Amino acid sequence: MSQSLIDHRGPKFAALLWEVLEGLKTVFQTSRGHIVLFPGSGTGAWEACVVNALSPGDRVLGCVNGHFSTLFCQTAAAHGLEVDKLEFAYGDGISADQVAERLAADKNHQLKAVLVVHNETSTGVTSNIAAIRQAMDRLRHPALLLVDVVSSLASIDFRFDEWNVDVALTGPQKGLMLPPGMAILAVSNKALEASKSARCPRSFWDWAPVLARNARGEFPYTPATALLFGLKESLAILAEETLPEVFRRHARLAEACRRAVRAMGLRLLASNPEEYSNTLTAVQMPEGFDSDAFIAHAQRSLDISLGVGLGKVKGKVFRIGHLGSLNEMELLGGLAGVEMALKSFGVNVPLGAGLAAAEAYLMETASRREEREP
Amino acid sequence: MSQSLIDHRGPKFAALLWEVLEGLKTVFQTSRGHIVLFPGSGTGAWEACVVNALSPGDRVLGCVNGHFSTLFCQTAAAHGLEVDKLEFAYGDGISADQVAERLAADKNHQLKAVLVVHNETSTGVTSNIAAIRQAMDRLRHPALLLVDVVSSLASIDFRFDEWNVDVALTGPQKGLMLPPGMAILAVSNKALEASKSARCPRSFWDWAPVLARNARGEFPYTPATALLFGLKESLAILAEETLPEVFRRHARLAEACRRAVRAMGLRLLASNPEEYSNTLTAVQMPEGFDSDAFIAHAQRSLDISLGVGLGKVKGKVFRIGHLGSLNEMELLGGLAGVEMALKSFGVNVPLGAGLAAAEAYLMETASRREEREP
Amino acid sequence: MSQSLIDHRGPKFAALLWEVLEGLKTVFQTSRGHIVLFPGSGTGAWEACVVNALSPGDRVLGCVNGHFSTLFCQTAAAHGLEVDKLEFAYGDGISADQVAERLAADKNHQLKAVLVVHNETSTGVTSNIAAIRQAMDRLRHPALLLVDVVSSLASIDFRFDEWNVDVALTGPQKGLMLPPGMAILAVSNKALEASKSARCPRSFWDWAPVLARNARGEFPYTPATALLFGLKESLAILAEETLPEVFRRHARLAEACRRAVRAMGLRLLASNPEEYSNTLTAVQMPEGFDSDAFIAHAQRSLDISLGVGLGKVKGKVFRIGHLGSLNEMELLGGLAGVEMALKSFGVNVPLGAGLAAAEAYLMETASRREEREP
Amino acid sequence: MSQSLIDHRGPKFAALLWEVLEGLKTVFQTSRGHIVLFPGSGTGAWEACVVNALSPGDRVLGCVNGHFSTLFCQTAAAHGLEVDKLEFAYGDGISADQVAERLAADKNHQLKAVLVVHNETSTGVTSNIAAIRQAMDRLRHPALLLVDVVSSLASIDFRFDEWNVDVALTGPQKGLMLPPGMAILAVSNKALEASKSARCPRSFWDWAPVLARNARGEFPYTPATALLFGLKESLAILAEETLPEVFRRHARLAEACRRAVRAMGLRLLASNPEEYSNTLTAVQMPEGFDSDAFIAHAQRSLDISLGVGLGKVKGKVFRIGHLGSLNEMELLGGLAGVEMALKSFGVNVPLGAGLAAAEAYLMETASRREEREP
Repeated sequence: MSQSLIDHRGPKFAALLWEVLEGLKTVFQTSRGHIVLFPGSGTGAWEACVVNALSPGDRVLGCVNGHFSTLFCQTAAAHGLEVDKLEFAYGDGISADQVAERLAADKNHQLKAVLVVHNETSTGVTSNIAAIRQAMDRLRHPALLLVDVVSSLASIDFRFDEWNVDVALTGPQKGLMLPPGMAILAVSNKALEASKSARCPRSFWDWAPVLARNARGEFPYTPATALLFGLKESLAILAEETLPEVFRRHARLAEACRRAVRAMGLRLLASNPEEYSNTLTAVQMPEGFDSDAFIAHAQRSLDISLGVGLGKVKGKVFRIGHLGSLNEMELLGGLAGVEMALKSFGVNVPLGAGLAAAEAYLMETASRREEREP
Repeated sequence: MSQSLIDHRGPKFAALLWEVLEGLKTVFQTSRGHIVLFPGSGTGAWEACVVNALSPGDRVLGCVNGHFSTLFCQTAAAHGLEVDKLEFAYGDGISADQVAERLAADKNHQLKAVLVVHNETSTGVTSNIAAIRQAMDRLRHPALLLVDVVSSLASIDFRFDEWNVDVALTGPQKGLMLPPGMAILAVSNKALEASKSARCPRSFWDWAPVLARNARGEFPYTPATALLFGLKESLAILAEETLPEVFRRHARLAEACRRAVRAMGLRLLASNPEEYSNTLTAVQMPEGFDSDAFIAHAQRSLDISLGVGLGKVKGKVFRIGHLGSLNEMELLGGLAGVEMALKSFGVNVPLGAGLAAAEAYLMETASRREEREP
Repeated sequence: MSQSLIDHRGPKFAALLWEVLEGLKTVFQTSRGHIVLFPGSGTGAWEACVVNALSPGDRVLGCVNGHFSTLFCQTAAAHGLEVDKLEFAYGDGISADQVAERLAADKNHQLKAVLVVHNETSTGVTSNIAAIRQAMDRLRHPALLLVDVVSSLASIDFRFDEWNVDVALTGPQKGLMLPPGMAILAVSNKALEASKSARCPRSFWDWAPVLARNARGEFPYTPATALLFGLKESLAILAEETLPEVFRRHARLAEACRRAVRAMGLRLLASNPEEYSNTLTAVQMPEGFDSDAFIAHAQRSLDISLGVGLGKVKGKVFRIGHLGSLNEMELLGGLAGVEMALKSFGVNVPLGAGLAAAEAYLMETASRREEREP
Repeated sequence: MSQSLIDHRGPKFAALLWEVLEGLKTVFQTSRGHIVLFPGSGTGAWEACVVNALSPGDRVLGCVNGHFSTLFCQTAAAHGLEVDKLEFAYGDGISADQVAERLAADKNHQLKAVLVVHNETSTGVTSNIAAIRQAMDRLRHPALLLVDVVSSLASIDFRFDEWNVDVALTGPQKGLMLPPGMAILAVSNKALEASKSARCPRSFWDWAPVLARNARGEFPYTPATALLFGLKESLAILAEETLPEVFRRHARLAEACRRAVRAMGLRLLASNPEEYSNTLTAVQMPEGFDSDAFIAHAQRSLDISLGVGLGKVKGKVFRIGHLGSLNEMELLGGLAGVEMALKSFGVNVPLGAGLAAAEAYLMETASRREEREP
């Protein structure tokens, strides 16, 4: 009988919940922010962010440099917001200068929020959130800063407090290394205050009852206890490795991946080295080849999963993911698969060259690591 | 690398998805309905139902006979609907006659939908959906029939097609015997048609892209593959036992539970025998005792989980769940725990009497079962 | 590749192994004893004990009071030992006085070992090992004391050091709450010394290489790492509850079970209250009924698993297990099943009477526990 | 209670057991042989083989070409057999001609058995069992043929019936892709007949009661049900791929591994191409380097697990395993790790060369595979 009744109200559950909330604050690098969890997904987190913080008719600045930032803006529009789009080429990051220009022009502070995706998973580009915040501060613009950190949190340095972010949102299935099934938000006091007068209709995604019940160690809905246990475990793994080391490891594997790609004679989609993503590399398919066909070929012949080109770059790029618990040999095995799949697809790739480049870089940086050991 | 990239687009995934959708149709007893799955929960399913089928300003008839039907109506109101409440005492089912009266008075068909909870988990009462449908048909009233089947589906007979239900909604954590984490809806063609002109702002919960992508074997979001595998397994277990046998088993255990409760000298909250719930029994706490205190005592002394009284019956009832994969001995062990907890809490319960009544009933019905065996 | 090569030689493995060995010493209540683990089973532990400690032609005193003690002696005989049997009725414990008598008669110390089963799982009888040790000490008889603790360790008080046991042997599937698959031995220095000159052919079961390699954190064979992790977890659970509390819990549930059995009008097989087993209760089938048929009936009609009568009491007893992580409600559910199965089998059992007796006893002893709480 | 009592006697258990036994017969390629399972390990299987089939004082021919064949012979000697050793260099297979020579000299048929290891895991050499059988047949020598197939079964072609093997023995942790914890034997009628008069003391390893009880769907000991379920699953996976395809896949990955090793400028330990093992490659450490130190370095710097040199080749070889469910990218990732570890250890390896060789071979053979597809 114990299993057939809801048992998520006891003191053990409260202890688990609070431990997870504290651990997530560490990962968001916040002490002032509030963590809110919903059953859902990253897509749900977009909606939760929008309907809590804003009102129908509000104008917002939507920074768009890829497929996922486009969808984030669509979610805002679907709930009645007026989205002023600031668009960049696929492969470019969000320019803080251009954000500043737009905000400077908004003398009356009609723009209520800036929407940005920290790491554009569709293009492999990481935008400089700190620079955007500095631009906003310089102009003393009161807009909320709403940031999608789905594919950066716990993999690429993200600082909620230092960068004065108002809402950061993600899911558990990337840097937190869990199955999907949750929307995870960090919310500033300013966003919390804004939500009190925000008038988007909301019920399921209303963060007020979640925060109220969480304070008592409960949820207003049946929580996915398994994911909470999973988060506890993930947070312990991240804490043991330490965030700086996690960021360093992702940076190192990502650079090895990029060197391999270039040694294969291919080009990245990302334009600027300082914006290269450390969790995903988007590679331009050589002229005359369709990337969708190539990805299907790679899946069929080697059971290797590459990401397709989304939106404007459909058929033109393939994407290599390198986040989470990946290690050197898994990366190299995957890169070997890419080499073989390209070659057998007809692309003239020198076998072994990409791997040699990646290995050389990994060895060079590994030896530095060993020197640091006691 | 295979694990770090999204792999929910292959043919194996499509086959799994379609198998699960077909299996769910069997459980909803529908061939015409469409199944829609969202990451979320039963609470999310209320929102999905409302925002897809209706528009702000629409009037709906909200049938309320407990805590969960109240919340269903609140969800509708939160999204701008005008909810005409038709209220019943906690312990009563929804009277089809009174629904008919309201609909008959609505000459202009301003009521766009009837909202009902099939099995009110807060009171242990199952309402007669077939009778409500007949009333609507008799009056030729075009309102949509929206039914919460969270604690009835796959446990108590529910017939989507035969009863012409327009939306039925649930989660995976009750009769489907899985962890929570999903909103599951069955949608009629009429509801689908209505959604095309419905104007509630919607994005995450929009069922149109889900249906479109499902038809291609995909999802518009990262799906919780583990829950899909779980559903496949649950559906196989239900199919092996057969739905009629699943309903019979729940009815038998529920009646044993009720007989035990009465033999302990206690009273049910449900008023009418024909409305007794076969998944949950709400028991009135004897005069002079607080049920919240009793439930805490039972948890502390015996590690037994009983449901609290919700809403109007807070402190006045405790609830015994008996759904899912429960067997006779687990039920009897739980009832023994209830006897002991009541006695040690100071309620004058004759030890063993409740169990003897339950055992006698189970034996009587078991022997009939054996006779049926070859 | 990491998975396809044996990886049980690293420092992490050694730390795990040593932690488990220390934890097992606590459970055996020994600081002087040596723990030896083999892939195998309790049956394998009999063989390991015999072939390491003794030589073909050695005479040993085999104490027999049930099926498992009979098999322990058969194992000894199979390896060429001369087993002098000291037999007792099924239901009686091993009399220390009669052991003393035999040893006293053995003036020349030809008996090299005494073989005893601490808790006879076939009869539900726990023998007094302390008394047997005192008898041996009184006579200054140098025989080794070899004790099967398969169904007593971690459930019933067993003291390897205090009782000067030479080999105690068990498996993981009873009080250690794990799947089967291992032979677990505690070995005294005296037994270790004896093994140096013991001449039974041995290879797989030779404990010398296991002890030598364990000291270096390794095994001479591919170890079942999963069972080692399981042991670590079981030992932590036992440590948290504390051994005295584990023994007290088993004693309390066992007494509740016995009271229920008597209130059903049935008789125990065990003769002497001070020898009642706290892990298993063997119940005499009433005259005119065959217990094998009854057990099959209980399995078929209620899916309840009862133990059959073994050896001399085949067809005459059924056995109720109550060890491991069992709680009150699981015991009561099981007893309810026994009542129902007996009644439907034609035995005249007053429904509810056994449960009432068990509940009354559990409540009485539970209230004492609550008084002890802060 | 259901969990606390032994439940391995029901009809479901029997069905599971028989299905597993039949499936194992398919994998051993036998219809006449009998499968025997013991809790234990491959080491235990050596003992089971010896004590059932032979008697103390029996002379046997022990073919030795590595560490594991040495241990197999030691097990025989420990149980009182006279082992005539026929020794070969580490790296050579067992010469059927030399076996024939020894058997021809044994005019009186004093040699009761020939002991061979099919695939010597310590050297990466597969011996020709079919040729040994032909030699025995030619001489009409009645010795039993006892074969260790621990690292060949379900990976390298082994034909129990066609090669008239008398006992073949293994564990579950190699080609059957499970955790260790079992001894698995296939036994011919001739070996079964021999066991009736064999006089090695035996109890735990006696196969007679196992066969007798298995015929009734039971075991004489508490079986590790989890491993039986695991075997069922493994056998289904193997059946789906088909044995010929499993053998082909291992051969292909092994050849890729060998080409990589040679392209790195290293030499194999195995002397003859026709005896190269398809499950393990032993690589000679270049002059001036100690393989134990190298393996520790690889483990420390890359967390890669390589096998050490055993026995006569300690410090002189490292071993790369490539059996079970390994795929191309895992192999290539592992080989990349070997390249990097060698280079950083000071061995002059051309980075990428080994991988290019392996990739080229895999592509060549993969394209042939694709051509076969519909």
